Amino acid sequence: MIIVLGKASEKQVQQILDKIKEKGFKPHVIQGSQKTVIAVIGNNAAAFIEEFRQMPGVESVAQVSAAFKLASKETHHEKTSIKVGSEVFGKGNIGIIAGPCGVESEEQTLNTAKALQPLGVKFFRASIFKPRTSPYDFQGIGLKGLEILEKVRSQYGMAIETEVMDVRDVKPVSEVVDCLRIGARNMQNFDLLKEVGRQEKPVILKRGLSATIKEWLMAAEYILSEGNNKVILCERGIRTFETEARNTADISAIPLVHLMSHLPVIFDPNHSTGRKDLILPLSKAAIAAGADGLLVEVHEHPEKALSDAKQQFTPKEFAQFLQEIRPIAKAVGKTII
Amino acid sequence: MIIVLGKASEKQVQQILDKIKEKGFKPHVIQGSQKTVIAVIGNNAAAFIEEFRQMPGVESVAQVSAAFKLASKETHHEKTSIKVGSEVFGKGNIGIIAGPCGVESEEQTLNTAKALQPLGVKFFRASIFKPRTSPYDFQGIGLKGLEILEKVRSQYGMAIETEVMDVRDVKPVSEVVDCLRIGARNMQNFDLLKEVGRQEKPVILKRGLSATIKEWLMAAEYILSEGNNKVILCERGIRTFETEARNTADISAIPLVHLMSHLPVIFDPNHSTGRKDLILPLSKAAIAAGADGLLVEVHEHPEKALSDAKQQFTPKEFAQFLQEIRPIAKAVGKTII
Amino acid sequence: MIIVLGKASEKQVQQILDKIKEKGFKPHVIQGSQKTVIAVIGNNAAAFIEEFRQMPGVESVAQVSAAFKLASKETHHEKTSIKVGSEVFGKGNIGIIAGPCGVESEEQTLNTAKALQPLGVKFFRASIFKPRTSPYDFQGIGLKGLEILEKVRSQYGMAIETEVMDVRDVKPVSEVVDCLRIGARNMQNFDLLKEVGRQEKPVILKRGLSATIKEWLMAAEYILSEGNNKVILCERGIRTFETEARNTADISAIPLVHLMSHLPVIFDPNHSTGRKDLILPLSKAAIAAGADGLLVEVHEHPEKALSDAKQQFTPKEFAQFLQEIRPIAKAVGKTII
Amino acid sequence: MIIVLGKASEKQVQQILDKIKEKGFKPHVIQGSQKTVIAVIGNNAAAFIEEFRQMPGVESVAQVSAAFKLASKETHHEKTSIKVGSEVFGKGNIGIIAGPCGVESEEQTLNTAKALQPLGVKFFRASIFKPRTSPYDFQGIGLKGLEILEKVRSQYGMAIETEVMDVRDVKPVSEVVDCLRIGARNMQNFDLLKEVGRQEKPVILKRGLSATIKEWLMAAEYILSEGNNKVILCERGIRTFETEARNTADISAIPLVHLMSHLPVIFDPNHSTGRKDLILPLSKAAIAAGADGLLVEVHEHPEKALSDAKQQFTPKEFAQFLQEIRPIAKAVGKTII
Repeated sequence: MIIVLGKASEKQVQQILDKIKEKGFKPHVIQGSQKTVIAVIGNNAAAFIEEFRQMPGVESVAQVSAAFKLASKETHHEKTSIKVGSEVFGKGNIGIIAGPCGVESEEQTLNTAKALQPLGVKFFRASIFKPRTSPYDFQGIGLKGLEILEKVRSQYGMAIETEVMDVRDVKPVSEVVDCLRIGARNMQNFDLLKEVGRQEKPVILKRGLSATIKEWLMAAEYILSEGNNKVILCERGIRTFETEARNTADISAIPLVHLMSHLPVIFDPNHSTGRKDLILPLSKAAIAAGADGLLVEVHEHPEKALSDAKQQFTPKEFAQFLQEIRPIAKAVGKTII
Repeated sequence: MIIVLGKASEKQVQQILDKIKEKGFKPHVIQGSQKTVIAVIGNNAAAFIEEFRQMPGVESVAQVSAAFKLASKETHHEKTSIKVGSEVFGKGNIGIIAGPCGVESEEQTLNTAKALQPLGVKFFRASIFKPRTSPYDFQGIGLKGLEILEKVRSQYGMAIETEVMDVRDVKPVSEVVDCLRIGARNMQNFDLLKEVGRQEKPVILKRGLSATIKEWLMAAEYILSEGNNKVILCERGIRTFETEARNTADISAIPLVHLMSHLPVIFDPNHSTGRKDLILPLSKAAIAAGADGLLVEVHEHPEKALSDAKQQFTPKEFAQFLQEIRPIAKAVGKTII
Repeated sequence: MIIVLGKASEKQVQQILDKIKEKGFKPHVIQGSQKTVIAVIGNNAAAFIEEFRQMPGVESVAQVSAAFKLASKETHHEKTSIKVGSEVFGKGNIGIIAGPCGVESEEQTLNTAKALQPLGVKFFRASIFKPRTSPYDFQGIGLKGLEILEKVRSQYGMAIETEVMDVRDVKPVSEVVDCLRIGARNMQNFDLLKEVGRQEKPVILKRGLSATIKEWLMAAEYILSEGNNKVILCERGIRTFETEARNTADISAIPLVHLMSHLPVIFDPNHSTGRKDLILPLSKAAIAAGADGLLVEVHEHPEKALSDAKQQFTPKEFAQFLQEIRPIAKAVGKTII
Repeated sequence: MIIVLGKASEKQVQQILDKIKEKGFKPHVIQGSQKTVIAVIGNNAAAFIEEFRQMPGVESVAQVSAAFKLASKETHHEKTSIKVGSEVFGKGNIGIIAGPCGVESEEQTLNTAKALQPLGVKFFRASIFKPRTSPYDFQGIGLKGLEILEKVRSQYGMAIETEVMDVRDVKPVSEVVDCLRIGARNMQNFDLLKEVGRQEKPVILKRGLSATIKEWLMAAEYILSEGNNKVILCERGIRTFETEARNTADISAIPLVHLMSHLPVIFDPNHSTGRKDLILPLSKAAIAAGADGLLVEVHEHPEKALSDAKQQFTPKEFAQFLQEIRPIAKAVGKTII
């Protein structure tokens, strides 16, 4: 059960909390930037919906059978749309995020941004920290990359995002970027989820390689339960027995998220496949299946990239890609760039 | 290496076979309905391409590095399109196959066909043998269902298909239906593959639950290597850790087949998901990703069905479904019903 | 619910069947070589246990909640032990089956048998039909291999087994060998299961590559429900994301089978791993976990084998292997060769 | 390639680093507590082995083809054994770690320790931070649990370990406990791995739910490459399609680690299965397959546990368990408690 508070006095809040405990349930108070919500944990809480609804200070009460309460469609029937800079995810929009896998240098980053701006790209991606399987591979440029990303925003008017991996970096990064990203390997790094949950900035939450949809939504719940309700889910491929592509793009995850949650869900065709020749057909599929956006890697010179060299588009290829996905977006009644 | 014979005399064929063996390779002669092809098995056969090309009786020679030779794009650069009745799979067409999971009775089958005809359906599906996990579940109506299927064809002008499971049934079934179907559980039932490979009728070959794309194409190769070159591949979901849907629809298999083979590939949204609410979004995704057709379950009264009760469309729902997928087909430049 | 009949007259049997139908259930009569059993299919059948128990002709009635009735521990509390030749599987015995992957020639087969006899091997394995991923690979020597297997029995006194793949071969093979084998790819080839279920000979049923334990026991149920109650289950590795070995040996399947079923379960270390260096540690693990036997590939000259060349033991290696697993068998209170 | 330094002067170290770069390779200096090692990253480094071997300050040079260099058997042919308190992992010892899933209270923790001491347990486990799928579940007692663990050590003479999840907790926890633990969900939390790599204490590194053996060893490499060479690997089950148990215990991982690495590997039967009835057979299997230890959950009152209630042993059950695994340890020539 979820209790949404209206303009409740401190005393009223206390009375509500007391009643929750009195009934044998556990309250979890979520101080959002706009509203305060209390998740009521325990079985059969739904039996007392009416009783809570009539208490002073309560705006509304919703029954939620799912373990993920704030992320559930039961709490929030209408789809949530999230705006980052001037790009919108949800409500008939297909948001596009593009940029290189990593910030390698100021030149490479700004050149890529310069090439993307005329294509209509309003949201720029680039990692300053790189989660690499090997400790001997390029680990990212680090915090000094933030200045470069700021230049992308000031010079090309784009919103910027980057991945955070270490809880200690969340605050300094959050102060600069427009959106945080949690990578697949950290989907169940719960301390990191709580930390980004305490920030004001939207968060792109990638699905873990072997995470079920429910676990993914529970990970989103960690962020929401700290008060940050701007979570954009991102499907990026799961691990299966098939070896033809690096991962298996789980396109079914997109409609499943829409059936289970109100949060927007985007698709990352690069990490879903690891193959350049699959990016276009699977991006089309994702849009047709209802994706609210795409996260695409574009590098000014992919062949020189320090990571993901084989799967990044050139700006020219990306322009062509945008041309080819537009008819699909139109066919499902959505707008793209 | 693949040697395609022209009008070769018996003596010429023998000379070619002799040279193959002389070079240390193994010939595999494939007597197709129109042409005879020799697959040359062994390493480094490609070194002798020119030598074989100049032999009398040889029409063309192609190098094939893939283990699946006849199914490979290397052998046959252009996509193959396959016609069943008046329905076409490939070459800009999205073929639609619709009908109930199983033939339960004459009435149920003919009623469903009657409802499908006005929707433009030209190809009817229905199983007379049902592969069931339990020996105590409905095992299908058996061979007597063939007469019912024939009535569908004579009364409603539709092409008909059904699944074969037992090698002893292949011939009698093949004499009646327009197209044979091999189910997922039998994808590596090699004797069955060889048997359908000896028939004239097209074959729908479903992907096994945990088959890699390569193994699937090798299964097709079994059919092709017996001389039947009319194989339609069908993606029907793979087994992964995710439990939200019955299987995980592997949409990426569709473009992968197109990159690796010339054979058409269709999509079965019912078995891929086992959930009615996922059929539409994933069928859209499949078409956007390049599927050459759909195999959809429609039953006059799904709630009374003896199998797959929860995942079959009513004719009315199916009519609506066709309306909704048409714009996607158009967006990828293809025609549907 | 399972009804075991005593010396029931035809009339009594009919009365029992009538009552089953009258209650709204479906009877499935299983004519075993020693007893006749009726599986009663339907919900809440258990409510009528007492009523059926008191009918004339009924020996005993057991409630079975599992979908696999005859294979369930609920039907048959004590573990079943199965004897093939002089080798026993179950009841404190670890049965050993050894021999080459395939019958390649009389010489190779008899030489291997000759080398195995002095090691105490009493049960010889060798495939005459080979299920191969490629149609161009060695497909097995075929039915003529039966004569060679018969010589193994007559000359070396061993019981013999081989795989059947085609329903048409079941009868001729069954007339010669002491035990039939169903391969992993055919675990859900239901017509084949029914056919071996109609034979008198014991059947080794390998687990499918992506079959759950329940599906595996349901496949066993197909054989049992035709009257053949001599099924030996064989774990042979499942398909997972891990690529270090060919398959992932699911050792947990062994105790799970013991918890769910009364049937004996053996382990195939060769196909579980595809790596010679894993055969010994995983065979030890299987025995420690409760395996009732091992199925091991031994070839007189593994390096010349037409299939599985890299994973077969030489007779000398196998002798050493037997030495090393014996202490584990002893530690779990079991006897080996 | 790995260069192990002897008593090298600063100048000598500089000369070695200069030569590495001159040859076009990348040096990675690893300051261990006892020795300094330089990992040389780049292709074909092996060609210069002799040249480096003869430089002053160099003690030895080893060629390593694996991507994980310090974890590889190529670097360190002999198995490493690691001592924590008076418990040893490796070299013929099977180390036993036992204790409750979580520290819930001082009473529950000390009572469990009190019951374990007479059984010979010398190494106590208990989590103070709990990685839970839901934000609403018990998240662990936190840092205040350290005092309770210290009492276990001072009162019962046991070594103590606990899981770290947040980089900020690593130092304070490391100052108290005898061994750190990294959970499956954090196996690729690279910042956390680096942080524990900078501590002096041994680290138990659990395998991720869908991590390949190679990725697991690469995760170990992150710890080793920061100078901490005391890594104990722990298999705890992988995610597959099978649902009978919570995870699939990958027993084959144990011999595979021994073939690929010199690090000890232990087995966690609780999380591998999530079923009490599988703990004994799979622990036996793990020991038979070569495990260097076990990590087992024991709780004074499992039914009251705040987490993993269904899978923890009572002290009495654990005593029985130890009795039953001892013969297997003996059969593989190892000592247990």
